Amino acid sequence: MKDLESLSATQAIKALSRREIKATDLLRSCLDRIGQRETLTKAWSSLGKENALTCAKALDKGPIRGLLHGLPIGVKDLYDTYDLPTSYGSPIYTNHYPSTDAVSVALMRQAGGIILGKTVTTEFATFKSAITTNPHDIGHTPGGSSSGSAAAVADFMVPLATGSQTAGSIIRPASFCGIVGFKPSLGKISIAGVKSLSITLDTMGCFGRTVGDVALGVAAMSGDHRLAEVESLHNKPRIGICKTSSWSSAQKETITAIAIARHVAESISKGTVIDLRLPKECDGLTEAQARIMLSEISRSLAFERERFPKKLSPQLLKNLSDGANISYEQYAKDLTFASKAKDGVAALFNSEIDILIAPSAPGEAPAIKDGTGDPIFCRGWTLLGLPCINLNITSGANGLPVGIQLIAGPGKDHFLLSAAKTFALALPDPVLRDQA
Amino acid sequence: MKDLESLSATQAIKALSRREIKATDLLRSCLDRIGQRETLTKAWSSLGKENALTCAKALDKGPIRGLLHGLPIGVKDLYDTYDLPTSYGSPIYTNHYPSTDAVSVALMRQAGGIILGKTVTTEFATFKSAITTNPHDIGHTPGGSSSGSAAAVADFMVPLATGSQTAGSIIRPASFCGIVGFKPSLGKISIAGVKSLSITLDTMGCFGRTVGDVALGVAAMSGDHRLAEVESLHNKPRIGICKTSSWSSAQKETITAIAIARHVAESISKGTVIDLRLPKECDGLTEAQARIMLSEISRSLAFERERFPKKLSPQLLKNLSDGANISYEQYAKDLTFASKAKDGVAALFNSEIDILIAPSAPGEAPAIKDGTGDPIFCRGWTLLGLPCINLNITSGANGLPVGIQLIAGPGKDHFLLSAAKTFALALPDPVLRDQA
Repeated sequence: MKDLESLSATQAIKALSRREIKATDLLRSCLDRIGQRETLTKAWSSLGKENALTCAKALDKGPIRGLLHGLPIGVKDLYDTYDLPTSYGSPIYTNHYPSTDAVSVALMRQAGGIILGKTVTTEFATFKSAITTNPHDIGHTPGGSSSGSAAAVADFMVPLATGSQTAGSIIRPASFCGIVGFKPSLGKISIAGVKSLSITLDTMGCFGRTVGDVALGVAAMSGDHRLAEVESLHNKPRIGICKTSSWSSAQKETITAIAIARHVAESISKGTVIDLRLPKECDGLTEAQARIMLSEISRSLAFERERFPKKLSPQLLKNLSDGANISYEQYAKDLTFASKAKDGVAALFNSEIDILIAPSAPGEAPAIKDGTGDPIFCRGWTLLGLPCINLNITSGANGLPVGIQLIAGPGKDHFLLSAAKTFALALPDPVLRDQA
Repeated sequence: MKDLESLSATQAIKALSRREIKATDLLRSCLDRIGQRETLTKAWSSLGKENALTCAKALDKGPIRGLLHGLPIGVKDLYDTYDLPTSYGSPIYTNHYPSTDAVSVALMRQAGGIILGKTVTTEFATFKSAITTNPHDIGHTPGGSSSGSAAAVADFMVPLATGSQTAGSIIRPASFCGIVGFKPSLGKISIAGVKSLSITLDTMGCFGRTVGDVALGVAAMSGDHRLAEVESLHNKPRIGICKTSSWSSAQKETITAIAIARHVAESISKGTVIDLRLPKECDGLTEAQARIMLSEISRSLAFERERFPKKLSPQLLKNLSDGANISYEQYAKDLTFASKAKDGVAALFNSEIDILIAPSAPGEAPAIKDGTGDPIFCRGWTLLGLPCINLNITSGANGLPVGIQLIAGPGKDHFLLSAAKTFALALPDPVLRDQA
């Protein structure tokens, strides 16, 4: 067997469950690929090779365990794992072994997933760049904070990896790395056992190379196995383009990406694709998200700030101090605002639209020295708690991938996956259609 | 100094911040009391005497740290603490030392609170009785799952202790132990670092002997320091009595408690106190809560169920199996129902009522052999996410305390505290007025 590492999660699972390929062979292909590429990509904070092989052998011998039977998976190092060190991207937690798995990790193992290793996260999933590079060009960032997961999937090291998004940490790296990233509805996947930044915003999700792959991942992570089956839409959706109030930040390649998306949308939509402005209840959404995040981080990391201030980066210390300076009145006001904004958007989805298309990032991945990129096009959607999925759609002047995100109404995760599949199948570039 | 252990948290904080008493003396009084009573009450799973004394000495020498300066606190053993073993009430986690504090514990320490020890919880905060007894009669349960916290506060071992409620684990033990228990709005206090049962339901809160005490506790645990100052209401509230659909479970003493509460309510309310039925969107609330809880527990404890089934009680194993048998369709339906019920209740509070009065438990504390009591009168309010506070109001045939709960509209935590203070001050029994 050759090139097993290039199978999508969906293809691999099909072959594994028919016993056409072995979990051990798939795992070894992934390990080979990691061996070839890791010195450049630096996607992994730890690998559990021996445990993974033991697990794969047992799965090859035993009955089919579940949705992820025999699939090697990368887990963002923000998620607790009982058998792999869990650093949260911070030197405070070097060699830290939690006593349990995060709930979503336990559910993936229960479904037969093989946790191959932990992928690099930025420091507590905040903004300081980690060591990981973009597999398309090692001079560029893979995005953050789910840097290692996005890079590992894009580099064919694993077919599936977990991420988390508090501002733009799934959708942005997926766009920068040219893969599919799925941030389901807020609360769809348990946050238990994932280092907490913001109770209001932290959303778990995953990366894959196809819509079917991320559907499988979130089905297992959430326990909602209905999500695993994705069909194209039976009815034409009403689609709108939402350039958002941050459109002035969009670079040439993102403007192109939205133009392409508009053409694709027109080919699959019911009626005209319109430019949609969010209801006025949403004015100031991005700013409110940023304040809520800073305010909550200053409390979530109170323990580390109190006991290990010297092990926190100057950038994070500044964030914590800025957050502590936001008054509780302001924070409470922002939460109330967010609640009204959610109502406003829910009404919009009820009455006018089924799917929104929006930029995933200002442009292609910045150079490493310039940080992990700006989450500005994701902050608002994260605060609204809506399901979002990134699809690769074009590339920029440096030849790096550029994506767009599809967004569905509250709780419409399954519908979003179907819409994304339909959309991907209508892309002009046949190679990109493989994302479906 | 004598009897410092009988000071309320509010009294103690006042004296501590004026340097009229020393944190070390208060701590020693609490330790003495524990020494006298613990063999009977069995409230503690571990004590951190030396660390607590070191901390108290430092606080006595240094500047005033914050809201809880020098106050000894009991922490339910469901909350992670970096310096005390954290068992979650399960033999799986004997001698388990987490690497961090739960966020709310870190915030209490930041505010100058002294974590004296961990209080007994039932197994993963579920239904199997723990060893703790009711300080009013050791033949009876203190309630669960926050058994040790409620008993420790009622027994004057500490002025303040943390709890958590997924079904009825704060309000019910507070009622059985005759103290004030405050379950603030869902999400008010971060759940990070507290063993997760149900993302939809888990709510952190605390126990004290006065309304001011629990206000202080939740102010520190949440970071919303505005809650710490509680004044009586300036305007008369509209009060309703909600016997709930479980009223047939109310025993004689709870019927009496509601009758007394009605008289008190009439003396402080604007207009007539009416019997209120929840809107029809709430029909089936208690049953939906029970299903959501079981379904989510079966996922939250997937790790333990997979790896340590023999260390789980038969009762919990049955719960996990029952939960796993609830279909995701049913679970999703229950979540949608809950969301509509919340809207219905929010509208009720907007239009008709400021405060609801409801039973806290079917009656006084059952005998130890009969379990930790039924959370039936709490399940619905927990699912609705509304702030609830228990006040002691009468006693039953066995001479054990019986409480009622006051409930306010969504997010009205501060208002609820003021209403509870006003209500307590109007109680006929002067001793019970001290709860204000």
